[in-house]
Amino acid sequence: MDNFNFYSPTEFVFGKDTENQAGEMVKKYGGTKVLLHYGSGSAVKSGLLGRVKKSLDDCGITYTELGGVQPNPRDTLIYKGIEICKNEGIDFILSVGGGSCIDSSKGIAIGALYDGDFWDFYGTGKEVERALPIGTVLTIAAAGSEGSGASVVTKEEGSLKRDVGSDKLRPRFSILNPELTCTLPAYQTACGATDIMAHVFERYFTNTKEVEVTDRLCEAILMTMIKETPRVIADPNNYEARANIMWAGTVAHNDIVGVGRSQDWNSHRIEHELSALYDCAHGAGLAVIMPSWMEFVYKHDVMRFAQAAVRIWGCQMNFENPEATALEGIKRFRSFLSSIGMPINFEQLDAKEEDIPKLVEKLGLGDGRTGGFVSLTSEDIASIYTIAAHASL
Amino acid sequence: MDNFNFYSPTEFVFGKDTENQAGEMVKKYGGTKVLLHYGSGSAVKSGLLGRVKKSLDDCGITYTELGGVQPNPRDTLIYKGIEICKNEGIDFILSVGGGSCIDSSKGIAIGALYDGDFWDFYGTGKEVERALPIGTVLTIAAAGSEGSGASVVTKEEGSLKRDVGSDKLRPRFSILNPELTCTLPAYQTACGATDIMAHVFERYFTNTKEVEVTDRLCEAILMTMIKETPRVIADPNNYEARANIMWAGTVAHNDIVGVGRSQDWNSHRIEHELSALYDCAHGAGLAVIMPSWMEFVYKHDVMRFAQAAVRIWGCQMNFENPEATALEGIKRFRSFLSSIGMPINFEQLDAKEEDIPKLVEKLGLGDGRTGGFVSLTSEDIASIYTIAAHASL
Repeated sequence: MDNFNFYSPTEFVFGKDTENQAGEMVKKYGGTKVLLHYGSGSAVKSGLLGRVKKSLDDCGITYTELGGVQPNPRDTLIYKGIEICKNEGIDFILSVGGGSCIDSSKGIAIGALYDGDFWDFYGTGKEVERALPIGTVLTIAAAGSEGSGASVVTKEEGSLKRDVGSDKLRPRFSILNPELTCTLPAYQTACGATDIMAHVFERYFTNTKEVEVTDRLCEAILMTMIKETPRVIADPNNYEARANIMWAGTVAHNDIVGVGRSQDWNSHRIEHELSALYDCAHGAGLAVIMPSWMEFVYKHDVMRFAQAAVRIWGCQMNFENPEATALEGIKRFRSFLSSIGMPINFEQLDAKEEDIPKLVEKLGLGDGRTGGFVSLTSEDIASIYTIAAHASL
Repeated sequence: MDNFNFYSPTEFVFGKDTENQAGEMVKKYGGTKVLLHYGSGSAVKSGLLGRVKKSLDDCGITYTELGGVQPNPRDTLIYKGIEICKNEGIDFILSVGGGSCIDSSKGIAIGALYDGDFWDFYGTGKEVERALPIGTVLTIAAAGSEGSGASVVTKEEGSLKRDVGSDKLRPRFSILNPELTCTLPAYQTACGATDIMAHVFERYFTNTKEVEVTDRLCEAILMTMIKETPRVIADPNNYEARANIMWAGTVAHNDIVGVGRSQDWNSHRIEHELSALYDCAHGAGLAVIMPSWMEFVYKHDVMRFAQAAVRIWGCQMNFENPEATALEGIKRFRSFLSSIGMPINFEQLDAKEEDIPKLVEKLGLGDGRTGGFVSLTSEDIASIYTIAAHASL
């Protein structure tokens, strides 16, 4: 096992009606002047935003609103948020929405306490030294941003999607009410589930040996998703299944299932170019890319893929031909994704094979390599896009 | 799933040589005058205490030493620690040892900022409002106190063993170097492993339905322990196995595997009377009590015990007779405990059947009931002690 630091100080407030604690939680963590950041109209229409505002009012907390976060959140709105924070002396950001909204809030949190351009920190490895404290009221189980220090933002000019990670960006608190996710359309629910599973798989395929404890924790989350996702697709109001998925989504990405081992993250990196270019849902892009990535890399460690097939997907081990078991696991993953309504190839995603050279170029690897499990060249990535273009069940 | 709050703000610093970061971590969390609290001579003899002191010295942190913590830590030493803290203006407690040392530190942390008797908080449900910050350098994987808000202390007068729990008692940081556990005798290692498994089982047997995510997380930790414990018993210097156990021990008890569900804790409560009366190791007492508790309660939810048998112990489900599967799982647990050198009945623990009335009386339940899975009377508890007295493989 590799040495590691694990630090997840976020207070999670989980369950029915918990959004009514928003004001109290902001107060507990020292907020007095809040930027209330949210996304599309659904938080408004559903009445959620009204309940959150009432909760802030009840606690005597003032706030300025900034709505309009889009999926694949844009730098342009973040600049607006930063300006508000600086002009109005905002001391806390409350993010009401999904991963895009929270990631946008983290961008604002960085920029509000930084003299230069917040974009300096994205994709550069530059260390975040200060950020405004944030809290979240989560509306979609997917990105895990409610418990992580990560943020992914798209720069409109050039459609560049880049990320930053820092413990300074971990929310002080996150309010998780699974009821809020019951109104999500099936497609968005499935996209979220795919993202959650991808967060675990990126950690599962590692070159670090003998980290049984995190292997098992990864498998726990994945088996939970395999059980619960079809239940919410069939019955969107199934609270118990929604609750299991929501908590699994948080645990999948606060890194408790990834400590002590190298991780990979190439599927995310390769997917980001798809959602940046086509503005497709991140989860849908992952459904197309991740099994294709697996097919490209599995020979690097057949026994690890066989372990995944047996332990996660319940395949029978083929002791005479472990490779067959490894491939069976990947096949089951792709079938599962298709069964919950996800695209599995370029056509289903409305992506074009002729764009592959452009996707590879935008990824910006040049002659370099990327990834922790198998180190990939630009040519390898083109091969993965090509597998993804033609994938079938 | 039940509503819950989950808050685990401890920073975990895990891996080889990490004790050398002790000074730096105390500094990071604001400590300047430290009470350096430790247990038996082993931390001194092994050179660990010397390395920790050097690390404090290097960071310009002054400290006062208080050694001598015993297993089942006593109130008497805690009073001494409180006096030192108050007299010398201590602002941070650094605990170098196992669960007993950390639990003793938590008692001191409460008392140092409280005008009355720290014992007021133990076994009473009185809320802890303030406590000195503590950090730990863990030397035994067992109690999980390095990541929990719990403390268990024995009052010498009357041998009363009582507990307290509060987020205020969660360590600011915990340094976990698995190498430090390699010198532990096999018996102590096995006692620790048993305690870790018990922490998970106390959470696993619940009346809350459909909490798949924490079921799976519980199973993940238990399967890890089943794989790794025999490896360290056979080869005490196996770093990888030690590392897996050490991290499993922390995850087992910071409550990530217990959220969203009712828990039980009767096995712990029933055991505490054994270790208070006979001063036996807590883990050894649990090895005698927990399978006996399971035999007494399993009929309350045969399918849950069958699930444990199949998923954790790898039993084949007997679909015609689920009860047989449930019992097979309990049998495997007891056999496992015996195989790692644990006692499984009163004789092997040097406990006496004729003491059962005394044990029940000291538990202090009177005509009340206790427990979250099956609510037990004093008579039920006597029955469990009796099963434990006579248990065999």
